[in-house]
Amino acid sequence: MSDTEIDALVRGLALAAKQAARRLAAAPSAQKNAALQRAATALASAAGDAVLEANAKDMAAAEAGGLSGAMLDRLRLDRPRLNAVAAGVREVAALPDPVGAVVSERTLPNGLRVQRVRWPLGLIGIIYESRPNVTADAAALALKSGNAVLLRGGSEAFHSNRAIAAIVAEALEAEGLPPAAVTLLPTVDRRATLAMIGLDDVVDVVIPRGGEGLIRFVAEHARVPVLRHAKGVCHIYVAHDADLEMALAVVENAKVQRPGVCNAVETLLVDAQVADAFLPRLAERLRDVELRGDEATRRRVPAARPATDEDWDAEYLDRILAVRVVDGIDAAIDHIARHGSRHTEAIVTGSEDCGARFVQEVDASLVLVNASTRFNDGHQLGLGAEMGISTTKLHAYGPMGLEELCTLRWVAYGQGQVRA
Amino acid sequence: MSDTEIDALVRGLALAAKQAARRLAAAPSAQKNAALQRAATALASAAGDAVLEANAKDMAAAEAGGLSGAMLDRLRLDRPRLNAVAAGVREVAALPDPVGAVVSERTLPNGLRVQRVRWPLGLIGIIYESRPNVTADAAALALKSGNAVLLRGGSEAFHSNRAIAAIVAEALEAEGLPPAAVTLLPTVDRRATLAMIGLDDVVDVVIPRGGEGLIRFVAEHARVPVLRHAKGVCHIYVAHDADLEMALAVVENAKVQRPGVCNAVETLLVDAQVADAFLPRLAERLRDVELRGDEATRRRVPAARPATDEDWDAEYLDRILAVRVVDGIDAAIDHIARHGSRHTEAIVTGSEDCGARFVQEVDASLVLVNASTRFNDGHQLGLGAEMGISTTKLHAYGPMGLEELCTLRWVAYGQGQVRA
Repeated sequence: MSDTEIDALVRGLALAAKQAARRLAAAPSAQKNAALQRAATALASAAGDAVLEANAKDMAAAEAGGLSGAMLDRLRLDRPRLNAVAAGVREVAALPDPVGAVVSERTLPNGLRVQRVRWPLGLIGIIYESRPNVTADAAALALKSGNAVLLRGGSEAFHSNRAIAAIVAEALEAEGLPPAAVTLLPTVDRRATLAMIGLDDVVDVVIPRGGEGLIRFVAEHARVPVLRHAKGVCHIYVAHDADLEMALAVVENAKVQRPGVCNAVETLLVDAQVADAFLPRLAERLRDVELRGDEATRRRVPAARPATDEDWDAEYLDRILAVRVVDGIDAAIDHIARHGSRHTEAIVTGSEDCGARFVQEVDASLVLVNASTRFNDGHQLGLGAEMGISTTKLHAYGPMGLEELCTLRWVAYGQGQVRA
Repeated sequence: MSDTEIDALVRGLALAAKQAARRLAAAPSAQKNAALQRAATALASAAGDAVLEANAKDMAAAEAGGLSGAMLDRLRLDRPRLNAVAAGVREVAALPDPVGAVVSERTLPNGLRVQRVRWPLGLIGIIYESRPNVTADAAALALKSGNAVLLRGGSEAFHSNRAIAAIVAEALEAEGLPPAAVTLLPTVDRRATLAMIGLDDVVDVVIPRGGEGLIRFVAEHARVPVLRHAKGVCHIYVAHDADLEMALAVVENAKVQRPGVCNAVETLLVDAQVADAFLPRLAERLRDVELRGDEATRRRVPAARPATDEDWDAEYLDRILAVRVVDGIDAAIDHIARHGSRHTEAIVTGSEDCGARFVQEVDASLVLVNASTRFNDGHQLGLGAEMGISTTKLHAYGPMGLEELCTLRWVAYGQGQVRA
């Protein structure tokens, strides 16, 4: 296809999806929930076999193409995994509907009654990489919050994504909602992605979900506003007055409970006053973790590898922990200001003052006192399922649940008021 | 300067301003207010003469450069205007401080106490055109909400902006706050603007204030998230059951009370059922307004000029009104979906049902029933001074007051909680 044809194709699909978004915004909760339940039932029943067949095709191509074992595992769907996808959709259906909630209301002196009302964003573009379950998760969250979605999945999962999107679209149609509210781009041509993120008169927001390269590409080329989930270089600072037993438990949990996720800790900052007492115990406790320390750390833990400058900015997503000894809370806060990614930052301390200073001066979507970084998650914080964790401060800062897929608009009811 | 030198200069200034932003975020209200009051006092006293002298320099250059009379008037400062600028700064100082407000709080079953806290965005880049008063207004709003600002004003107002920024910076310093919190780019070289809107690791958000060309330029080139105030193509729909006297008053107010602003009405949609009764009275009432009508309008108002396709998308900012006769509420909603700019939309109707449908199906930052579009304004809606009116749905939709210059971050207090 020529560039012009690609642009026309994407624009046409986006306009149809936008039209559908108007219907979705006005759809009652019961209708949206019925469509989600119907999609979940289809995925979990014989109808879902079409997804497994499509996935087998994707897997065969990926194996022939020499995709790595880890990548193949991310791509693969089987009956239990598909049932889990269906359960995720049901879980979203069960969440409260954010649309139409009046979050504030007042009557102005002139009698005008003014409300702020939670309202869908409209048409959300979602760009994601290999895992096909994102197709169902993202569509469910978007639809529940009254939005339409334009999906651009990874090329490896193309057939799987298409089969899942078709099941969701059929469920919408069966419940009287426009199937175009879930539209998968029919091509993985990068020009189609570019066209989609340039449509700032049609698409209301783009959410890239994937690695740093994808997010950078979208941030660089998008004219449409972007909700970004960037990397998590999370720190724990063990303060001079920390309960060291608590610190060990928090660091262990934050590092090893699930090392491959964005809210796992990557760098540990240890106050010089407790370095002698703490670091040998840490090395003992985290025997399965590779420690990379600065000189002061290696004096206490000779087995630690020397850390390089790159280590302070690394998101390992692995059983590796960078460790640095710092001179007091100011040095810790400075280190985080320089190397943190505004995702999740924690302090372990025995004093309220110390905790308050850390909270006051550290910039991150979640700042914790005496708890594991692993709590930065929609489920853990009580939002239910989430679309990702925003590390830009615009619109959402932290987990993006259903409310974060909405905006607040103004509505005013008058009796002919005019401005003086 | 070479491209590299420009990049290094802008990055250096931005990093210093970002450092200052950390101090501002933690500054108590009293300290921020004292700095704003001090700046206002300086602007309104002999110290402000430096601004008037700088402005005289700008005016001389602008006159020599052949700037239009309207542009010269926008650029010009005199003692009364400068005093009004100072009064605006005092008004911002008097508003409640949004920073640190706990907007929700709950204790999770594991005992973790979780809060959402209003918090400054950080470093805000503001790009604006000729009016130098924006330097003071924007700086005051940003500082009051705990942010630092990187200002890039119009080239014509360069000396005026520099003098105003210097006064604000001195006031900050005198009150113990970092003067770098208000940093004016020392060059109007477009490459400096490009460098600034590319610094997505330093600048938290960019707000362009000005014409469509400026906003498009920023949207196209920015990597930093953008808060956009686009054009206002606002509609009023006079429904079949409207009180026609009320409709006349609302339309007149929305069109002529101040035609040059974004919340003035630009297109009037009149239900076919009331066209005969309403349109001749409208023409009579708006004798000073140029009407541009479709055929059905011109049958009732022969003096109206014929409207072209461009008229339905025009933001006149003038005493011109496009008028179209529509067949019922669906046609009105469709017209607005196609031509509206998501700014402000109003209906005049006698029935709750009709109003409810309009509110439900029209997408705009403010939807009004039986009131003038002119109410979409921070002062009118009770936010106080505003930074502009956002027409993108991300972060802020409608007037951007102090709360909209903040984000909501998460803070959690525990006793050693780890994730199971």
